[in-house]
Formats: sequence, structure tokens, C-alpha cells
Amino acid sequence: MNQEHQIQLPPFSIRTDLAREAHEMAVQKHQEKGQSQISGVRIEETEDQGITTSWIWIDNQAGAQELGKMPGTYLTIEVPALRGKDSVLQQRVAQHFAKEFSRFLQEIGIGPDASCLLVGLGNRNVTADALGPLVVEHSMITRHLFLLAPDQVAEGYRSVGGIAPGVLGTTGMETSEIINGVVQHAKPDFIIVFDSLAARALNRVNTTIQVADTGIHPGSGVGNNRKALNKETLGIPVIAIGIPTVVDAVTIAHDAIDYVLSHVSREMQGVRNNPLDPYNRPTVRDLQSHEVPLETRNRMMGMIGKLSPEDKRGLIKEVLQPLGQNLIVTPKEVDEFIGDMAKLVALGVNCALHPAVNNENASMHMH
Amino acid sequence: MNQEHQIQLPPFSIRTDLAREAHEMAVQKHQEKGQSQISGVRIEETEDQGITTSWIWIDNQAGAQELGKMPGTYLTIEVPALRGKDSVLQQRVAQHFAKEFSRFLQEIGIGPDASCLLVGLGNRNVTADALGPLVVEHSMITRHLFLLAPDQVAEGYRSVGGIAPGVLGTTGMETSEIINGVVQHAKPDFIIVFDSLAARALNRVNTTIQVADTGIHPGSGVGNNRKALNKETLGIPVIAIGIPTVVDAVTIAHDAIDYVLSHVSREMQGVRNNPLDPYNRPTVRDLQSHEVPLETRNRMMGMIGKLSPEDKRGLIKEVLQPLGQNLIVTPKEVDEFIGDMAKLVALGVNCALHPAVNNENASMHMH
Amino acid sequence: MNQEHQIQLPPFSIRTDLAREAHEMAVQKHQEKGQSQISGVRIEETEDQGITTSWIWIDNQAGAQELGKMPGTYLTIEVPALRGKDSVLQQRVAQHFAKEFSRFLQEIGIGPDASCLLVGLGNRNVTADALGPLVVEHSMITRHLFLLAPDQVAEGYRSVGGIAPGVLGTTGMETSEIINGVVQHAKPDFIIVFDSLAARALNRVNTTIQVADTGIHPGSGVGNNRKALNKETLGIPVIAIGIPTVVDAVTIAHDAIDYVLSHVSREMQGVRNNPLDPYNRPTVRDLQSHEVPLETRNRMMGMIGKLSPEDKRGLIKEVLQPLGQNLIVTPKEVDEFIGDMAKLVALGVNCALHPAVNNENASMHMH
Amino acid sequence: MNQEHQIQLPPFSIRTDLAREAHEMAVQKHQEKGQSQISGVRIEETEDQGITTSWIWIDNQAGAQELGKMPGTYLTIEVPALRGKDSVLQQRVAQHFAKEFSRFLQEIGIGPDASCLLVGLGNRNVTADALGPLVVEHSMITRHLFLLAPDQVAEGYRSVGGIAPGVLGTTGMETSEIINGVVQHAKPDFIIVFDSLAARALNRVNTTIQVADTGIHPGSGVGNNRKALNKETLGIPVIAIGIPTVVDAVTIAHDAIDYVLSHVSREMQGVRNNPLDPYNRPTVRDLQSHEVPLETRNRMMGMIGKLSPEDKRGLIKEVLQPLGQNLIVTPKEVDEFIGDMAKLVALGVNCALHPAVNNENASMHMH
Repeated sequence: MNQEHQIQLPPFSIRTDLAREAHEMAVQKHQEKGQSQISGVRIEETEDQGITTSWIWIDNQAGAQELGKMPGTYLTIEVPALRGKDSVLQQRVAQHFAKEFSRFLQEIGIGPDASCLLVGLGNRNVTADALGPLVVEHSMITRHLFLLAPDQVAEGYRSVGGIAPGVLGTTGMETSEIINGVVQHAKPDFIIVFDSLAARALNRVNTTIQVADTGIHPGSGVGNNRKALNKETLGIPVIAIGIPTVVDAVTIAHDAIDYVLSHVSREMQGVRNNPLDPYNRPTVRDLQSHEVPLETRNRMMGMIGKLSPEDKRGLIKEVLQPLGQNLIVTPKEVDEFIGDMAKLVALGVNCALHPAVNNENASMHMH
Repeated sequence: MNQEHQIQLPPFSIRTDLAREAHEMAVQKHQEKGQSQISGVRIEETEDQGITTSWIWIDNQAGAQELGKMPGTYLTIEVPALRGKDSVLQQRVAQHFAKEFSRFLQEIGIGPDASCLLVGLGNRNVTADALGPLVVEHSMITRHLFLLAPDQVAEGYRSVGGIAPGVLGTTGMETSEIINGVVQHAKPDFIIVFDSLAARALNRVNTTIQVADTGIHPGSGVGNNRKALNKETLGIPVIAIGIPTVVDAVTIAHDAIDYVLSHVSREMQGVRNNPLDPYNRPTVRDLQSHEVPLETRNRMMGMIGKLSPEDKRGLIKEVLQPLGQNLIVTPKEVDEFIGDMAKLVALGVNCALHPAVNNENASMHMH
Repeated sequence: MNQEHQIQLPPFSIRTDLAREAHEMAVQKHQEKGQSQISGVRIEETEDQGITTSWIWIDNQAGAQELGKMPGTYLTIEVPALRGKDSVLQQRVAQHFAKEFSRFLQEIGIGPDASCLLVGLGNRNVTADALGPLVVEHSMITRHLFLLAPDQVAEGYRSVGGIAPGVLGTTGMETSEIINGVVQHAKPDFIIVFDSLAARALNRVNTTIQVADTGIHPGSGVGNNRKALNKETLGIPVIAIGIPTVVDAVTIAHDAIDYVLSHVSREMQGVRNNPLDPYNRPTVRDLQSHEVPLETRNRMMGMIGKLSPEDKRGLIKEVLQPLGQNLIVTPKEVDEFIGDMAKLVALGVNCALHPAVNNENASMHMH
Repeated sequence: MNQEHQIQLPPFSIRTDLAREAHEMAVQKHQEKGQSQISGVRIEETEDQGITTSWIWIDNQAGAQELGKMPGTYLTIEVPALRGKDSVLQQRVAQHFAKEFSRFLQEIGIGPDASCLLVGLGNRNVTADALGPLVVEHSMITRHLFLLAPDQVAEGYRSVGGIAPGVLGTTGMETSEIINGVVQHAKPDFIIVFDSLAARALNRVNTTIQVADTGIHPGSGVGNNRKALNKETLGIPVIAIGIPTVVDAVTIAHDAIDYVLSHVSREMQGVRNNPLDPYNRPTVRDLQSHEVPLETRNRMMGMIGKLSPEDKRGLIKEVLQPLGQNLIVTPKEVDEFIGDMAKLVALGVNCALHPAVNNENASMHMH
């Protein structure tokens, strides 16, 4: 057992599955303390025509402590407009994702011939949880060809197997029990796990893709505690690709209160919003980054306005949970979102794993 | 064109698809004004082992004005525990619904031999909107038997046809165009329309069934303006069975703020909550019916706490809408909820329409 | 009632939904009688890289009598290799179908602005019968855009609506009752009906597309007698696009006996088969066109070998039918075949109906 | 490696997955030789209201040689009327199957507390092959309850896990690789494998259930050669439950020829058929058991009529196979058949595995 597992998350912190969010929260905390740097963490962020790409490297335990995330490499792609069902944009994002994911494989030292096992976590009969199984279904599976007729496999492909192991409630088995067994027999060189995540903000749902080399804790997104799938437990690199598909009512309520507070405060201060918008409307980022003066908080929202984010969230949860009102929800259009996102991710993964697959011929290779 | 269509909804009122909610809001308003009666409206409410049944009769234009709903008969069945996936409870609710719906048919003068057309509104490829098509799929269709071999149809059945006409976006046609045409050719004596509704409270989703003889405005639940399906437009009685399956983020946020406010106020006042609960936790009803003193509102929630429900909701919507944050959402378990609810409703309708179908043999009659 | 409906099919003839097959049978009969021409019928046939395209025009009652089909224009596209799941071939067939279908629309006088209603016959819950509903689902529906915002519709599109009316057993209504009603309200200029057919040969299943301007008799393929959908009953041109998806056991047995007989006869005669095949194997066409000498028939198959095709088929049916052995069957891969074929047909129809849609951007326009 | 694997199947024998058919063929062969007993094989057969139940015990290598099946216990339930979609009959068969399967577990020494792993073979996206995954989906999974809260599991349940491992073409892995791995980690006491079989007669499809304690060779039904799942390879008892869901065109043609021959022969001999049928029609059994005189065979069917079943089948296959005409087919109604059969089997298995589940409450325990 190495050091990585002894990281203690800071008390009262809000758990997030996304390194991008953890980094933002850490930055905020540092700024409040007047610090400018987070030691042990590097970040690289670019934006291109509505696609924001960030690379975060957590280099050591210090950085891990600060962000509450394992040391490792995190790639995040954010495309707010992805919810608009624009098939041209989807195509562009798939292409961009393929390129960045290729770089990710290189960064973490996965060679072009390393054999791969795709693992689609989740329950295919629960649409909001079906992303993992669907991605595997749309991916190019080639391992049996290498097995049965290796000399007939063309150049430019690698051995890829795939499995959707189901969930505890439908198999009666921990995902880790199944994957461990399969890995021992199928002996892949590395694993890619696909999973649905619980978002910490409504605007994350079906707009964000996170890739990490730190493996995952299946089911952790919805409050369960399962055995990890990572290099330590499986003995091979485990890449996790996660996409937020659900959010809880507490998060929706909490965000709404914050947005209202920030919005009103900006109006009171006469802040100029988005200069491109004739209606002078703020964006989500404008509201999130706006600092609401204490006096305004008090006047607008009384004691509740003055609570820290953690406390506010805690109070809402304390009230809603026993009422049975803290439902996990998903957008009404979940069927289409999940279907489109699964194809987008599979397209990108197919291109990144097999040099012979490119954007022109990719759809021919899909199921 | 008769008088019914000239009802003006009171300004600033919050639209609700449920007469039960409209009645509650009207009662509150009257109590504030010190009145005890709503003229033109009768209500009958009973509760039995977790199933609340209410009958509301809006007798005239005065009552219609007060509730913002058409004159007519409204039956509402509320079962908060229905979200618990308890198949024994589902069975019991189906049975109860069958009994009450039989009474409904009698109340509005539908005879035992009147032929029926079932219309399942909604989009079967959008799970949260698939309730209507699914109910029709599970219902007993007999019209072709009466048509092709009338002497072979056993006693105790009536002629029932069914159609799921699709939605504007997938057919390019107004639902009313399709149903009008079908009615003119198939000539049923009355129509039952099944529809998914947008709830005005998260706890309504998949726990409430409303039956009304006033017909419906397809798509009105999600902000569209379609032609009505009712006795005037179709020439025959139109019964609407609606079930809330989605809710918007504004509603979730608004309700959460109210619950928090009410919860804190009760704690400050030391109000005894649910005496049966060792943890002294309030129920949703406790919180909803609790009157928060103005001083508490101010202290806890500042100016926002003091807003009227309409204004609070309006403010939240004003902020969320332009941010693209006012998503329509549905519980993560939507696939199972919709599937179970469609079976429950079809079971009840089958029993109520065909005397030969009863609780023992009902599953044999289902698809 | 005009003349067209008084055509008497010749006694004992074998019914086929395909004009291409009817034409072949008529040619054979004429050759037996030493005639070389079928009066009132013109045919044009081309073959290109595995795609056979035939145009048949039945010009008058004489031709109709000969073929047992209504006067009209018939386009048939046959691609035996389509069952090989080759996505490049599928793409090529879709393109070819789009081109030929455009010509078909011109041939029968449908202008570029004529509004269209797509009708998908069949039962979406029975995979082998789901082709019609699936084609409509994948088609571009634009009628509501012309209705709601006509000035915002770009150049190069026409008004297209779509409906999948279900089948008698699930709606209780004749398809013609529903379509008649819809046509009266939606008022399209012409109709395209998509339907699954029963093949008269196993090798037709999922390899043949027939387009005809004679309308269709829904359900006739499986022995039902429904009201027609055609220009007389609906008042506007009705184009039928039919694809064989099922076959009955009698057909399979009958064809197998014929193939065996023909195969053995050719072996006995030392006929050279396919010169391209090193194993000297005959093709389906070789066997079908081979004339088995009476003596060989007798020696190989006794009395049964000497029966005419009609009598042989009749005998097999007479035996299998009462045994419950004359099942209608479909290939095991039906899910994939139907899915792919529905997309192929929708792609072709989208391109032919809307000039703005072409092969490059077609997938962007599909659902 | 023990003796069981060295059994050589007799040359030229027709492979059948069903011991019941193998037994019939062996009996016929013995009768031709004037023998009355098959040594090493015991059979017990009963019939009750349309349900035929047979138990076959192959006691030793001699019996295994005769039947071409492994030594072991085989239970077969045949219900020709099951294709009639009669839900009362389905209920009765489920009940009967539960009773017989309970006896089977006792016969082979599986105790009431032995933990079980259900394995659903097949491809859930190919309807005709989806039976296995669907049975597992409808089965009661309890293993996680024993794992997480063993003291809260009520009396009358045993630990049951379930997995649908997918097929080689979609996972890239042999089923045996996956199951081996899972068994090593989940450590069940025994396994039940559900599989779709290829029938050797059209009337078997969706009417027959076979239970055997000899394990299975996944994919063998469709000509593949995979590693076995049995006691030797997995170290624990492996029960296989197989249901014929597909049949090939050769079988259909071969059976049709035989039925025609037998039918005509009986007519020529004036054989009285089913005395209960006013039309004097023979049943499938009548035709199958009728001995056609050589002279009749010759007269009716020439040389082909005189071929042995093996040779006739071989000839038909030799002709159809290279033509691409030997399709594997399934009844058009496959969606409904597979759905109903999966529920029926899951119902029976649930009752047999868990004493607390009985016919009254079984549907409450199903998914």
C-alpha cells in the first residue's frame, strides 16, 4: 500500500468528481488568503470556438491535499453549447477529443500497440446511467480478431476488448470482483473505464468530459462506497473517462440562490455584463466570479446569504433529505443526450486507439 | 363558441395543470382575506393508507375564475410513497384508481356500452414524455373485434380503439389535426387522453394522477400553444388523465428556499413536528402549511424571503432563464417510474372500461 | 369506381408483391407458349457493380392482366450483397436509390414543391414489421416549420409530415380510417407509404426495394384484406415503397426443392457453372433459369418433381398449414437488417425530397 | 482430463442440442436393428394437458456413445401450444417448470443454501439471441444483500448473482475467459447458464425447455467452437437451461419434404388420422412416426425420397449453403416469444431457487 491512499480530504470540503472544479475551489480559497500559487499543481487551459480544454497535473502529495484529488493527469473538455443538439458541433468536439485523448495516452506512456480493455460502468436500463455500456457498444472491438486470425488484422489497429459489467443491484457482485477476474484472464495492457458522474452544477450535465489516469471508485458519484479500479488494485494503468449526467436537487437550489444573489448584487452595483449581449445579461461565469459584498448578502438573503457555500449546501441538504426531496435528476432530454454523447466519446476513443481510424472513415467503424 | 373559452386567468397567477393545486392556492388566498368559502367550487377529500383522493367540482364561471381552471369534474389521486417502487402498493393504487375512475365515468354520464378512443400524447422516444404512448400500448384494444366479428366478442367488453399520434416535432402535424381526422372516421362515443404534465412541485413527480372531463391543451405543460382537444373541438366528451413527470429548475429552487425558510422558522418557534417521528422531523405538508413570521423571513432570507411566491418564482426564473439554467428535469429513475406508472394506469383503465376485467384477471389482459 | 379495380387475377396464380417477380413469371409463361412479347408492358433493366435496377411500366389493362398488377410505374432495386453488412455498399445503395427515386418522382409528375406525407406502416414492437415506422423516424420532418415559421425555412426544402399509424391489432382501427382522416386535415399533395412485404423467395429478404405509384393494400402481404391506400381512396398520388422482410416456410421448402432439382440436373448434364468460381458452383440465377428435363425430374423427385410450381407450392402448403408448421420467418439478424435498411431508405428519401440535402450532409439531417 | 471428453460422436450423425431428440433418433436406429433397449440410458416421460415432461439419465459411456451426449441428467419440457400466446398456459408452464426444476436441483445434489451464479449467454441486441440476458434481467438477484446486510435477508432466500457476459463479437473475449474470472472472485457453489439453441425442427422453436447438468459449449449451436463451461473447466456444477429459438433453412426444407412424403403415403394407405379432428388431419407426431414404404418414396419423391435423413439433409445443405440460402431464421413474432419465454423461465427459476418465492408472490419478485 503506497502513500497515495492516505490522503485525507480536508474537513467540510465539498466532494467533486471533477479536478477542474476542485482546482477552481482551491484557487478561490488561496485568493481569499492572498496566495497566488497552488504548490504541486500545474494547469494549462485553452479555449477555441466554444470548446475549453484544460490539463491539470497534480504532481505530488501537496497538490493532492490542496485539490482533494489523487496525484495524476487530468484532461477536461467543456462545451456548454453541446446541449444544443448541433451535429456539426458534436463532430467537431469528437475530433478535438480524439486529438487530446491521443496526447493523453502519450503523456501517460501508453504505446501504440498496448492492448486495451474498455469497461462501461453503469446500468443500461437506466438511461441516465447507461453512458458507459453505450460507449462500449459503439466502440471498435478487435481483440477476438487478434486472437483468432492475427495475421489478417490490417495495420493501424490495436487489440481492444470491451465489457459492460452491470451494477451491484443487478449482478449482486461488486464491479471490482468482475473486472478483477476478467483482467486476470484477458490480460490487457491497460484499461479505459467509462462512467456517468453526478455533477456539482446543473450546467455541467452533458457538457463536460473528464479524462484521468487515476482510476475510479465506481458508484462513488451516488454515495456508494465500492472498491477502487486503479493501478494498485488491477496492476495496470486505469484511465477513467467520466461525464456528468445527473445532479441533485440540493445543487440546483444552491446554485439558484447564488445566481440570484450575484445577479442582484451586480445590478445594484451597475456592473457591465457581457458587452456582446444587447440585453446586458451576465453569463454563468460572470455570476460565479462576482464577489457579493457582505452588506448586500445580508440585505438580500439575510443569514442564509451570509453562509459559506459549504454551510449553505449543508443547510439545504439537511432540510430536503429527510423530506425525500433531494432527488437525483437529469434533463428531460436525457435519452438523446446520452445517445449523442456515447457516440461522440466512442468516435473519439476509436480514432485515438486505432491510427487506421480517422474522422473520414470513423462512422464506418461504429456499431 | 360558448362562454367557457372567455375565462380570463387572473393576472400574475401561477399556472398549474392540477386542479388540486389551484384549489389549495385559492384557499390560501381566501384565508388571507378572511373568507372561508370559494363559491362555485365543491371539494371532497379522503385519505386511506397513504392514498389521498380528492374530487373537485367547478360548478360555474365564478368557480372557474377563482381556480383558473375550466368548469368540470376533477379527480386527483396522490400517493407520495409511489416513488418507493413497492409493487404491493402499486397493485393497491391500480385497484383504487380503477374504482374511482369507474365512478368518474358514471358521474359524467358515460354509459357501459359507449365506445372509446384512447389517445396517448407524447413522444415515445423521450422517456419522460412516453407515458401516453405506453399506456395505450398496455391497454386492451377491442374495437377491431367488434368490427370484424361482433358476435364473437364476449359479454363485459366495450369497443376501445387506441392511438399514439406522436408530437409536432416528429410528425410535422398538430396533434389536433390528427385526432380530429381519426375521430371523424372512427366515430368513438368518447375519448380518453393520456398526457405527461410538468409538475409545480418536485414531490408531485410520478406520485399524482389527475382525471378531468375538461379535455386538454396538448403541449401546454411545456410552454407551447396547441389547439385544444375537448368537447367543443371534437364534439364528444374528452377525459384527460395527466401525470406529472417533469419539473423545472425554478420550481426546485423555489421550493427549496421555502422549505428551508419554513424549517428554520419552526425550529426557532420550537414547533412540535410529526409526533410519530422520533427525530421530530417535519413533513412536506407541515412545512407547506407553516406560516413564517415576517420578522423571521427578513432575518433569515432578507428581501428575497419577503417576496410573495409569485414574485420569488419570477425573480428566480428571470435569473436562470437567460443563463440556460432553467432546465426541465426528471428523476434519474425515470425509465422505471414511467414504465410502472403506465402499467398502473392501463390496469385501472382496463378494469374501469370493461366489466369483464377485474383485478384477478387484469394482468392476463395486458400487453 | 373505375376500371382498374375490376382486374381479375388469373386463376391459381401465385400472388407476389413484386412487379419484378410477376414480370419474370409472365415472361416464362410466354416463352413456354412461344411468344416473345408481353403487350402493354415495358421494361428497362440495368446492372452496376452488384446493384440491379429495373423499371417496369404497365401501360394498360392488357399488361395489368398479364402481370396481375395494377397499371402504373414500378422501380425495383436489387442488391443481393446488401445482407453482408457492408457499410460502404449501404452508402452506395442509398445514393443510387436517391437518384432513381428522384427520377421516379419526375416520371410520375411530382413537382419540387409538392407537400408530402410519409406513412410508416407496420408495428414498431415487432422488429420484422418495424421498417415503416423506423423510416419515418429517420426522415426529415419539416411541415411544422412551414406552418409555424414559413419565412425561416431555407431554400431547398419542401413540406414533409410523417406518421406511423400502427396496426389493426394495436389500434383497433383500419389503417385507412386513420390515414383518410389525417389526409383530410393535413392536406398533403402526395403520400409515400413504407411497408414490409412478405417475400416469395428467401434471397429477396432485405435485399430488394420496390417503388410503385399504385398505392398499397396494407396487410395484404400477410393474408389480410384491408382497405386500399391509393389515389382513388385518398384523392392524391400514393407512392408505395416496399421491402421484403419475411418469408414463409412453404416458400423456403419450395425453393429448396427446386434448387436441389436444378442443381442435380445440371450436375448430371455437366453444365459449366459460374466460370469465375474455382469450385464451379452455380448461382441462384443459374439454378432458377435452368430447365430441368422431365425425365430427370421424375427420376430425382418422382411425382412431386413433375408438379408445376403452383401445384408444388400448393401441396406443401396443404400439408404444413394444418400442422401449424407454415410459420412466417425472418433472418436471425433481423434487428440489424431492419435498422440498416430503414436508415438507407430514409437517407435516399431525404435526398430525393429536399434538394438541399445531399450525400455529404445527409447524416446531419437524420434523426 | 477425465474420460467424458473422449467420447467420439458416431460418424455422420446429426448433431442435436436436445437429448430428447438424440434419444428418439437412437430408439429409431435400435428398432431398425430389432433391438428394444438402449443400454446405459433410462427415460421417464409423462404428459399432462399439453405439457410433455421427459427425464433422461445417461448413466455411463455406453449410453453416451449411443445418444452422442455427455453422461448426465436431462430434463425436457415440451409445450407445442406455447406459441399460441396464451397467458394462462404460460402461467401453468412456469409453475410446472418450477416444480420440475426443484426436483432437478435435488436429483443432482444442490442443497437449499448453495449459492448460485446465473449466466445469461447471448447478445441482447439480437432479439433471437437475447433470451439469456433477459432471463438474468428478470431473475431475483440477492447476492449483494447477503454481502452487505446478511442479517437483514429474510428466511427462504439463497445467494444468487447474475451476469450477461456478452458474445465474442461484442466483447472480443471468449465467454469462458469472462466466466472463469468471475467465478474465481465471486465463488458461487454452482452455476446456471441460460442459452438460445438452434432447433433441429421448426416446431421446437420457442416450445421446448431443456435442463441438463452437463454444462454447455457456448456458441456451439451456431457452428462456433468455444471453450466449454462445465464442472471440469469451472470446478463447480454447471446446469444449462437451453431453449431453441432459431432454425436453419435446411431444416425447414428437410422437414417439409418428410411431412409431404409421410402425408401423401398415409393418404394413399387410407390411414385414419387424429380421431378427434373432423377433417381427419394428421398431427406432427403422426407424420413423424409414420413409416413410408420404399415403393411410395420412390414414386412420390424419386431418388431423393429414398435418401436417409442424414443424406437428404446433407444434400440440401450442399446445395443451399454455397448459394447463401442457408439462412438461420426465427419466427416473425420473435420479440414477443423471447420476451414471454424469458419471463416464464425466470419465474420458474426464482421459485425453484428461493423457497420464499411461490406462484402467488412471484410477480412481485420480478423485475
